[in-house]
Amino acid sequence: MVVEIISIGDELLIGQTVNTNASWMGEKLSMMGAFVNRVVTIRDTEKAIWDAIDEGIKQTDVVIVTGGLGPTKDDITKKVITTYFEDELIIHQETLERVKGFFARLNRPMLEVNIQQAAVPSKSTVLANLQGTAPGMWLEKNEKILISLPGVPFEMKGIMEQEVFPRLQERFGELQFYSKTANIQGVGESYLADKMNDWENRLRNANLELAYLPSPGMIRLRITSRKGQQDEKLIDDYFKELEIAYPENFFGYGDLSMPEVIGQLLLKNKATVATAESCTGGAIGHAIVSIPGSSAYFMGGFITYTNELKHQLLGVQQHHFETVGAVSEEVVREMAEGCKERLNVDYAIAVSGIAGPDGGTPGKPVGTVWIAIATPTETIAKQFQFSDNRERIINRTVLSALNLLKISIN
Amino acid sequence: MVVEIISIGDELLIGQTVNTNASWMGEKLSMMGAFVNRVVTIRDTEKAIWDAIDEGIKQTDVVIVTGGLGPTKDDITKKVITTYFEDELIIHQETLERVKGFFARLNRPMLEVNIQQAAVPSKSTVLANLQGTAPGMWLEKNEKILISLPGVPFEMKGIMEQEVFPRLQERFGELQFYSKTANIQGVGESYLADKMNDWENRLRNANLELAYLPSPGMIRLRITSRKGQQDEKLIDDYFKELEIAYPENFFGYGDLSMPEVIGQLLLKNKATVATAESCTGGAIGHAIVSIPGSSAYFMGGFITYTNELKHQLLGVQQHHFETVGAVSEEVVREMAEGCKERLNVDYAIAVSGIAGPDGGTPGKPVGTVWIAIATPTETIAKQFQFSDNRERIINRTVLSALNLLKISIN
Repeated sequence: MVVEIISIGDELLIGQTVNTNASWMGEKLSMMGAFVNRVVTIRDTEKAIWDAIDEGIKQTDVVIVTGGLGPTKDDITKKVITTYFEDELIIHQETLERVKGFFARLNRPMLEVNIQQAAVPSKSTVLANLQGTAPGMWLEKNEKILISLPGVPFEMKGIMEQEVFPRLQERFGELQFYSKTANIQGVGESYLADKMNDWENRLRNANLELAYLPSPGMIRLRITSRKGQQDEKLIDDYFKELEIAYPENFFGYGDLSMPEVIGQLLLKNKATVATAESCTGGAIGHAIVSIPGSSAYFMGGFITYTNELKHQLLGVQQHHFETVGAVSEEVVREMAEGCKERLNVDYAIAVSGIAGPDGGTPGKPVGTVWIAIATPTETIAKQFQFSDNRERIINRTVLSALNLLKISIN
Repeated sequence: MVVEIISIGDELLIGQTVNTNASWMGEKLSMMGAFVNRVVTIRDTEKAIWDAIDEGIKQTDVVIVTGGLGPTKDDITKKVITTYFEDELIIHQETLERVKGFFARLNRPMLEVNIQQAAVPSKSTVLANLQGTAPGMWLEKNEKILISLPGVPFEMKGIMEQEVFPRLQERFGELQFYSKTANIQGVGESYLADKMNDWENRLRNANLELAYLPSPGMIRLRITSRKGQQDEKLIDDYFKELEIAYPENFFGYGDLSMPEVIGQLLLKNKATVATAESCTGGAIGHAIVSIPGSSAYFMGGFITYTNELKHQLLGVQQHHFETVGAVSEEVVREMAEGCKERLNVDYAIAVSGIAGPDGGTPGKPVGTVWIAIATPTETIAKQFQFSDNRERIINRTVLSALNLLKISIN
């Protein structure tokens, strides 16, 4: 099944809106075994719409058009489609009732333009839009399928899931791929690719597909089988090899984020945690509380952006600032231990670093970060050297600190 | 100047990557007066690239191609372009030196594939890539321009800004639109649109264009004039009306973020700030330190996720937790005042709220947030009711707290 996606809308072309509809559909369609051949984003004009539909229909099996179905007069997609399929518009009663109900619930008057939203080409199969007023439409001609959907993301997604995917599957058969994603933190993509060369080759020889998915501060590795669920164990075995090779970097599967992994570990161990942050300014605490229910293990923490507060609130000895400096093993250790003791928790995370762009020295360039974890039995500390800009240094510090906590708990 | 953008890459079609390159270019090109006619996203195959370039060249003045210039063997764009322009590849010495220097700095061996990155069509103008190894290329044929750029966003942006925009401007003349964006916080888009109906109509009658740019937790309003700089004062006058109508919500122009506005205000007033956060878990501190140089005014703060710590670290009276509860005016006031006193700062921000999904009650549903600002002369407190999910409640709390600080300083 070869698919072309046509996205209609000036707002996409002038960069007011990013075309996330196309990527969502691309991902879902690929996962069900379809081949997305092209995405064409066009202006909201009759000629542009006609040309794009005509090209798409000639080159692919299925053309999915999004956008241009709203109530305003600029939205001419429906007219073009109807003409293209040599059809005429008729009012679809079921849709009209739905639109009427929609306006009644909002207590808003219904205008003529709203009634026209219930008009569809007479030969089309109407795809019910349970989230909005403009229905989707499914048209066929010479074995080719044209699907027209509203551009509002949640309306488009609803119709795709409830109406389009089941019909495509029925038509083109179960092509369902199977795929699994593993998350790895603290090792660079090129380093990993280099080390895992042999692993990658074996994987490809087993007809599995590997993708490195970019994600800030970590690597997400996706293995896909075109044979479906039957390859589940094979894929698991390949990932197990990675788990064994990178026990300190491998942190979970699927959409599980690092703060979620940490949360589950702390809950399992009935342990509590607190933070003492300098360069991250609260970003580690923020990441931890992003998880619902984090109050079960997160108590709180200190943001000690100045040396004065590192001393006053955490008991870091003043002389360190003159001798080894605030970004040092001595200081993060005392920050972690001071935090753990004062807040009476099982684990404390402390970070101190130079996020830049200023403040770097030859010995401690921008991106130098010290992280310490105080555990019930010991305190471990580790130095990191990150590059890039302030935002990315802070982000990497958060992930590395949480990863170091994970290793400490395990 | 009519432009077509061609984005090459399987990762874009299968939804691994969202095509933010095209929206960035669309916005910048539109702002300089170009008409972006179409964006075509295609597979990394010879035929797809050839067909797309051929179509683009026939229909527009300028075709900008991104992607397909990396060192791996899949990247065939350069070959197709060279053949299309009936040209041959030659090694560009200046680029080769740059690539060599790049590998030398990283202490990595340079491979044959890397040398090939310095190969360009002999008739092309090389567009220097100061951020990476693959250079951009500018080719012309029968008054049509083809520009080929790497797909890595920051490399593409660097070449566009340093090499492409100046050349396009020279060729097509100053078509520069003039536009200005204002940022508004704490009022809903539909509410604003409703209130400003008359303002919007007058604006459109003056041939100015208005766009509501979506941005989490705030509204960005852009007014554009196609006549350019001459309309600057007119646009300023329209925005002044908004400033007067929404003094508490209007927080700045352009790309200036709320933390930057706060930073500039504190610097100007030589004032310091600290935070006492509950439901945001450090997100306010994180937002403040996202600005380089924030150590000049941000001292640090407390994350008091438990009642116990609100009492222990900030001196909140225990009886409040039984009587009015942790999410109350009494508690945030004492948090702010306790923080200000203990950290000896001019301003302290305190927040306490229910970020959900659990923890809501009929009297204090999820999204109830109290925010207090302790200033040198008084403490102000305000209750907010946010909806949506945990992440958005936290995000809105951060923006609202910073906005309340802004109002307190002014």
